[in-house]
Amino acid sequence: MILRYDRIAMELPPPSDPDPDGVRAVQELMGGRFGEMSTFLNYTFQSFNFRGRQGARPFYDLVANIAAEEFGHVELVAAAINTMLTGASPTAKGRTKVDVTKSPLAKVKGLGNPQHFIAGGQGALPQDSNGRPWNGDYVFSSGDLVEDLTHNFFLETGARNNKLKVYEMVEHPAARALTGYLLVRGGVHQIAYARAIEHLTGADLRKMFPTPRIPTDKIPECKPHIERGDHLRLYRFSIEDYQELPAVFNGPNPETGEDLVVFEEAPEGFPPRDLPPQPAVFAPDYAPEEISEIAEKLRQQAGLPKEPTGMVADLEKAAKRSTRKSPSRAKSSAKR
Amino acid sequence: MILRYDRIAMELPPPSDPDPDGVRAVQELMGGRFGEMSTFLNYTFQSFNFRGRQGARPFYDLVANIAAEEFGHVELVAAAINTMLTGASPTAKGRTKVDVTKSPLAKVKGLGNPQHFIAGGQGALPQDSNGRPWNGDYVFSSGDLVEDLTHNFFLETGARNNKLKVYEMVEHPAARALTGYLLVRGGVHQIAYARAIEHLTGADLRKMFPTPRIPTDKIPECKPHIERGDHLRLYRFSIEDYQELPAVFNGPNPETGEDLVVFEEAPEGFPPRDLPPQPAVFAPDYAPEEISEIAEKLRQQAGLPKEPTGMVADLEKAAKRSTRKSPSRAKSSAKR
Amino acid sequence: MILRYDRIAMELPPPSDPDPDGVRAVQELMGGRFGEMSTFLNYTFQSFNFRGRQGARPFYDLVANIAAEEFGHVELVAAAINTMLTGASPTAKGRTKVDVTKSPLAKVKGLGNPQHFIAGGQGALPQDSNGRPWNGDYVFSSGDLVEDLTHNFFLETGARNNKLKVYEMVEHPAARALTGYLLVRGGVHQIAYARAIEHLTGADLRKMFPTPRIPTDKIPECKPHIERGDHLRLYRFSIEDYQELPAVFNGPNPETGEDLVVFEEAPEGFPPRDLPPQPAVFAPDYAPEEISEIAEKLRQQAGLPKEPTGMVADLEKAAKRSTRKSPSRAKSSAKR
Amino acid sequence: MILRYDRIAMELPPPSDPDPDGVRAVQELMGGRFGEMSTFLNYTFQSFNFRGRQGARPFYDLVANIAAEEFGHVELVAAAINTMLTGASPTAKGRTKVDVTKSPLAKVKGLGNPQHFIAGGQGALPQDSNGRPWNGDYVFSSGDLVEDLTHNFFLETGARNNKLKVYEMVEHPAARALTGYLLVRGGVHQIAYARAIEHLTGADLRKMFPTPRIPTDKIPECKPHIERGDHLRLYRFSIEDYQELPAVFNGPNPETGEDLVVFEEAPEGFPPRDLPPQPAVFAPDYAPEEISEIAEKLRQQAGLPKEPTGMVADLEKAAKRSTRKSPSRAKSSAKR
Amino acid sequence: MILRYDRIAMELPPPSDPDPDGVRAVQELMGGRFGEMSTFLNYTFQSFNFRGRQGARPFYDLVANIAAEEFGHVELVAAAINTMLTGASPTAKGRTKVDVTKSPLAKVKGLGNPQHFIAGGQGALPQDSNGRPWNGDYVFSSGDLVEDLTHNFFLETGARNNKLKVYEMVEHPAARALTGYLLVRGGVHQIAYARAIEHLTGADLRKMFPTPRIPTDKIPECKPHIERGDHLRLYRFSIEDYQELPAVFNGPNPETGEDLVVFEEAPEGFPPRDLPPQPAVFAPDYAPEEISEIAEKLRQQAGLPKEPTGMVADLEKAAKRSTRKSPSRAKSSAKR
Amino acid sequence: MILRYDRIAMELPPPSDPDPDGVRAVQELMGGRFGEMSTFLNYTFQSFNFRGRQGARPFYDLVANIAAEEFGHVELVAAAINTMLTGASPTAKGRTKVDVTKSPLAKVKGLGNPQHFIAGGQGALPQDSNGRPWNGDYVFSSGDLVEDLTHNFFLETGARNNKLKVYEMVEHPAARALTGYLLVRGGVHQIAYARAIEHLTGADLRKMFPTPRIPTDKIPECKPHIERGDHLRLYRFSIEDYQELPAVFNGPNPETGEDLVVFEEAPEGFPPRDLPPQPAVFAPDYAPEEISEIAEKLRQQAGLPKEPTGMVADLEKAAKRSTRKSPSRAKSSAKR
Repeated sequence: MILRYDRIAMELPPPSDPDPDGVRAVQELMGGRFGEMSTFLNYTFQSFNFRGRQGARPFYDLVANIAAEEFGHVELVAAAINTMLTGASPTAKGRTKVDVTKSPLAKVKGLGNPQHFIAGGQGALPQDSNGRPWNGDYVFSSGDLVEDLTHNFFLETGARNNKLKVYEMVEHPAARALTGYLLVRGGVHQIAYARAIEHLTGADLRKMFPTPRIPTDKIPECKPHIERGDHLRLYRFSIEDYQELPAVFNGPNPETGEDLVVFEEAPEGFPPRDLPPQPAVFAPDYAPEEISEIAEKLRQQAGLPKEPTGMVADLEKAAKRSTRKSPSRAKSSAKR
Repeated sequence: MILRYDRIAMELPPPSDPDPDGVRAVQELMGGRFGEMSTFLNYTFQSFNFRGRQGARPFYDLVANIAAEEFGHVELVAAAINTMLTGASPTAKGRTKVDVTKSPLAKVKGLGNPQHFIAGGQGALPQDSNGRPWNGDYVFSSGDLVEDLTHNFFLETGARNNKLKVYEMVEHPAARALTGYLLVRGGVHQIAYARAIEHLTGADLRKMFPTPRIPTDKIPECKPHIERGDHLRLYRFSIEDYQELPAVFNGPNPETGEDLVVFEEAPEGFPPRDLPPQPAVFAPDYAPEEISEIAEKLRQQAGLPKEPTGMVADLEKAAKRSTRKSPSRAKSSAKR
Repeated sequence: MILRYDRIAMELPPPSDPDPDGVRAVQELMGGRFGEMSTFLNYTFQSFNFRGRQGARPFYDLVANIAAEEFGHVELVAAAINTMLTGASPTAKGRTKVDVTKSPLAKVKGLGNPQHFIAGGQGALPQDSNGRPWNGDYVFSSGDLVEDLTHNFFLETGARNNKLKVYEMVEHPAARALTGYLLVRGGVHQIAYARAIEHLTGADLRKMFPTPRIPTDKIPECKPHIERGDHLRLYRFSIEDYQELPAVFNGPNPETGEDLVVFEEAPEGFPPRDLPPQPAVFAPDYAPEEISEIAEKLRQQAGLPKEPTGMVADLEKAAKRSTRKSPSRAKSSAKR
Repeated sequence: MILRYDRIAMELPPPSDPDPDGVRAVQELMGGRFGEMSTFLNYTFQSFNFRGRQGARPFYDLVANIAAEEFGHVELVAAAINTMLTGASPTAKGRTKVDVTKSPLAKVKGLGNPQHFIAGGQGALPQDSNGRPWNGDYVFSSGDLVEDLTHNFFLETGARNNKLKVYEMVEHPAARALTGYLLVRGGVHQIAYARAIEHLTGADLRKMFPTPRIPTDKIPECKPHIERGDHLRLYRFSIEDYQELPAVFNGPNPETGEDLVVFEEAPEGFPPRDLPPQPAVFAPDYAPEEISEIAEKLRQQAGLPKEPTGMVADLEKAAKRSTRKSPSRAKSSAKR
Repeated sequence: MILRYDRIAMELPPPSDPDPDGVRAVQELMGGRFGEMSTFLNYTFQSFNFRGRQGARPFYDLVANIAAEEFGHVELVAAAINTMLTGASPTAKGRTKVDVTKSPLAKVKGLGNPQHFIAGGQGALPQDSNGRPWNGDYVFSSGDLVEDLTHNFFLETGARNNKLKVYEMVEHPAARALTGYLLVRGGVHQIAYARAIEHLTGADLRKMFPTPRIPTDKIPECKPHIERGDHLRLYRFSIEDYQELPAVFNGPNPETGEDLVVFEEAPEGFPPRDLPPQPAVFAPDYAPEEISEIAEKLRQQAGLPKEPTGMVADLEKAAKRSTRKSPSRAKSSAKR
Repeated sequence: MILRYDRIAMELPPPSDPDPDGVRAVQELMGGRFGEMSTFLNYTFQSFNFRGRQGARPFYDLVANIAAEEFGHVELVAAAINTMLTGASPTAKGRTKVDVTKSPLAKVKGLGNPQHFIAGGQGALPQDSNGRPWNGDYVFSSGDLVEDLTHNFFLETGARNNKLKVYEMVEHPAARALTGYLLVRGGVHQIAYARAIEHLTGADLRKMFPTPRIPTDKIPECKPHIERGDHLRLYRFSIEDYQELPAVFNGPNPETGEDLVVFEEAPEGFPPRDLPPQPAVFAPDYAPEEISEIAEKLRQQAGLPKEPTGMVADLEKAAKRSTRKSPSRAKSSAKR
């Protein structure tokens, strides 16, 4: 089971010029064979299907725990896509209604994936860069531990390839911030699976790194994460479980020689931006302010605070009305 | 982001007679259009794509929170499938090797989904009852709040239909326990979405219940959950977030008239069974005890306890070696 | 546009022993690449896309008109499937409720396509014999008239192959009656497309018949249709349109030498059977008699006759309550 | 079974500037999950699979009859697509041959769906806006009447969403005329299914309307249809059957309060345009005039009029050669 | 380009009891994600897309050459499937016609993949064990040499897993002979790709072998191939090209320590069996002897020998009528 | 089994301006329903599944032999795609590294199929022009000889249609050279299958030609192949087998009246170009010259020549380092 917390893994830049063609490319990192849905659901199914897990506990913990981090990567790709699509149709301005007869989507005709606008509400789709849906054939869960790990090492390799390509293709700041981050974290997972194979078989994979040969240290969007040490850390995404990560995730980073380290706590994360309504696509409605009024009334009837209790990043002042201080969660997290 | 905890939502019966044909049916609840992957990923994508979420906070919280519970349902279906497949090939007995030349899978030829044995290691697949992979076309995330809720109400309706059919078809105790539980919890989600629509539009959907007309109160496998009150409760699957659930999830259960209630904590859950290796399918290996030896050595090198730290249900004595008392987690959970 | 009339193309035998495995095979004739959905939708799309149709009117009329007949073939395959699945779960007996806890679907576990019971209500699915959905890739509509006709000739050839195989495999009377009929009618369409090619190009395809080499004259289930002359007739499925069929559909039947003939009226058809509810799969409900009571009340409120006005074949006496004599429609049809 | 008549549901504007990118979007209304193939085939399968239909006659009649109208909507979408693609390659001018070596398709390279030109002859494909084929997974036919109706209400909701989005994106007159019409008719079907649910369960869905919140009364392309009363009417698409529609389709339109009404006759429709050949894509041939000559000869041999008997709208004078007056059909239709 | 020679890679046993359920499993080795179509087409596409191949010649030669061998593996799987399906319907006996009205396929209803009989003529399908078609998503061709090799190593690993599972499940002699052979040859390819990675990166993968841990030396159906040395050999499947294989394929077999060796010639192979007609499925016809008569006449008109010139194994005496001695080809092969 | 030789069927022009949108169209000829993968794999499966092949030898030889030629067509389409994508990202210049932070793929954002850059390394994908993967549903292998041949005739017809459309759409010299060649060779295969049908059934298909009505004699890119006589020749792609081609492939070309002729040897072909690395997409590496150095070292260790032994066309001088004279192969080929 999971507990969810409403933070995202990194701060993404705010919406700027919308980029439907760029989003089409970023979707490969969502629903492509090597996208984050694939990493998330591969490791999740492998952990669900893990037989004799008590005997192989350090390996089970590794797979199950990385699966948990990958959920946050799917979330992050979705946030980047939503950011990049914001403004592609007119953003809501108070109570001024969009005029649907003025072709408010005409300027995106012929750009990107049309389903972002027709089927969706300028949001992420579980599809790849060709508009094809993610599907379960992308999951490999053979039950054979060494094979599953071999697959996972290969999967992370392919995923890093795809991330760099998107980085090279899409100049939108959200896309570059996203891929910079994912390259660093994906690199850690790739190392983790290599280490697991080495521990189990005795083979030595260190000289395969980096594969593909991506110079992450020269990529500006990777640097802050490397400087923070995120290229060395495996976070434990659980309050009490997955304690045996250090049994597998140890030794030197094969690229830099620095020591790998298990972080006993999940990252605190950042409040997500509350991206503005796009009423031309009914997201979340043709008249979003009416929903707000209903929500406020319901909140009051339930004895909840008048202002929304959720925490969001400060996109527009009016949107951020957290009832609590941001640091409080960090502390509470630290206490656990 | 998520924190994962290694518990499952209910206690499933231990492996008994394997039932490959029954598993084939249960897979519909995993990867079918109305299976748990669908409910999980529909609500997850809707929450990721939620625009103006601060203004619509109670509704955002509802969708995001139910998504979190659905992860546990996917996990539970996987556990049932693994349980039902255990023993379909010879279960590992100490160091006695299975003889692959003796056709250890011959007795399942022609039964169920052959990929359970050939592609997988007698584990769950992200497929439906016809062996077709779950795919992203099953996700509806229009961004329009009322539409998304209408979809979700319909999705839960269809899901309950499929659950009952599997209940009627498969007599294996794990399948019946699973479907009894899911019928009750799915019913709560169906009510929750109906309530959300009612709050937003003013329509009155109460008389549609139950739909489909399933007499859950007469189903023995539903009863313990109803007696516990699980047909009335929405659990909050977060430590700090999703606090506005009570603004939407309130009023009477349309079937029984009892009051709906938000539970401010996620259920503690139950340690999952550590299902035994099936070496004929290399799960987790042809010689699983060698993995255990490696694991033990690695644990020691990392300064971890000699015994595995993970908690599992007592399938065979040797398999349960938790270093901690089970209640400890409950307390820690309560403290949060 | 279409007018629909509630008759089916031939009298199918009543439900007898249910045959889920046989139904699985019959589904190939529904949703397989060469099934009736394919013939129906291929010709329908070709007619929709027909450019310069006025100049090529006899050919347009041929394709558009055969498309209309194919709708009735899809309907007939569905009727056969429903017939063959009737009784696979307990048939409703008045107000006696089925007990869902008694595993009313247990006896079909492992048989046929599980989605007939789990996703559907013992009814036809738009799938093939492997449970894969029909899809638009099966439609060929190039716009090139000779190519489209070449395709259609090939499609009917493959369709006849598949029909015979199902005839050889499934002994259920409904399956044999169905395939006997479709073999004869499909043969006429195959000839029609061959004639069209011959008229357009001057090639002589007569010696290709029969292809595949099916001895329809020796198949008892084909005989009544041959005796009636249905192997020579093209019916005009329109009140006023498609009058130029005789310009293409003429000359001898290449197998028998008899003259082909255009029938200026659609066949009258037969009232379909009203197949009984199967409450274990909620078709049409867990308590179907309550729907009847509501229906009766609504009919009265609308000033309609107390008894249902629709005409159905006499399955159980109580089910047939036509307010009109069956011959009346025949007359009205004749008048047109 | 069906009778087909060669009229389309509304007059579409003539071909103007071709719009391949716009067509790509319109394809979502053809082969998307919420396109017209989906509405048509969902209701068609539900009607085929309807058990105990005599007892539930008003509801059976409703589903079966709306299915029949939807065929005409598929046809209309196809006509719009063909209109919008006309002229994308050179239109035939008498006997002047297109020169294939002059790259007559070069100007559409990189635009829209390439299969419109390569696989098709500038015609409609059974695909969505991403070029993926419609498939049978989009059909829901559970057999449970309330569930099927719930689905249909949801399906029409999603379909209206998609129609508006296409309206907002594509400025081509044919696309706007198409979507204006479909929004009105889809709205009626949505209401019809809501009424059916209300009658069966007692729930009150009126306040859900309009959903999505589309201001159809402000859309110029909707207005003529609203003024004609088409937002209130359900046409009976049968000569003798489906007489119990008034038992379900009654009461006020939930948006306007006006009375819903059943029209006892199908709409007469309009002669479709005979869209001109596009010889660069061989539609219907490289030398279409040769087909005309053959057709004329065949017509004469069959004793048919020298001129084509079919009725088409007056695109170019030469193309319209109906042997009958247009009103005659209306009368004949009235007589039925 | 390729030259084809009509030999198969090993002698398969003759048809015995047909085994439709076993064939369904064997299809995974044909059209599954890890089947032979996947290995063949992965390496083929990688070789087609190989940039800078002159600079990386030893690696190009390796991939291109293994691709060529894989064609023969696809062929062998097809031969085994055809063998196992022979006799499932009545085998042709001279001019005695099968009686299609006697349900000659009834005994296979409910067994295996129904499309083997309905769509196919008791032959191999490009599908997996669930009847789903092989598709291009199974091809990985990133262009990055190390990544492609990493993939190929993983692919061979997964393929060996699947082969063993089929071996364990299907007792039919043709299936066991097939899998015994493929396990040995697949093992060589797995080693080859590991060696390539080692040469390129310096990593040491030897200790990963065997993976999965299959005791091929204990499998009777592997033994003859191991004894012949086929577990050490890479054959050069070209007359003049791919001469740089020894630059990569060298060193010890990581399992046995014996030296790897490049064989400068393709294996001679064995004449395939001429499997007998199955007229109930029209393979190759309802009356196959009439085809023979036509063939004989055509041969004579073309001045060819009266007897067929092709070489086939001696299934029935009458079937083998080679005009040449078998050794002749071996010699000619040696001369090349 | 096959022997592969590293030549392609015709000389393609060198890379010029890259054309991602054009490549997207060309992919239809690779992975579309009527692409070369389809022709190759249809005939390959039909030959594998051919029952009673000895009795039908001339027909078996025809199908098996054309299959072999089709492999070369798949290869040629891949070569054209690679050619057309060369230069879309910066081409490697010695040891100058591409700077991944400078968005080297930005200029192809929004063009063509994004997976050519993200998933692939600017190489061919097994997909169609909409980015959908080729799949096994495109294979027809019924076992019925006349039906299979009818299919093949239709398949070649559709394939020629698609080839011409691509010719009309894409002006890139490689695309035009490719399609000019394929139109001529596909025409021969179409005739071959027509002849086979005529011989088997007695029907006369000559008047159907050309279909579609493509004036190949007026297409400059077809002319050199017609002048060489390639529109009349069937090459025997085997050293010893398929000797009975002349029994079927004979008589006049139905378009020109010239005699058809069997060429007893496969075409010698042309050395393929060694397309330059594209390091921004890691093809074959970020630093391709390092691979060359490794390769050279390995070659030396194996006692092979210092220079690469493979033969490639002279793209850049440095790339062609064949150790042998080109004519030598021709001679050796002639000797066979």
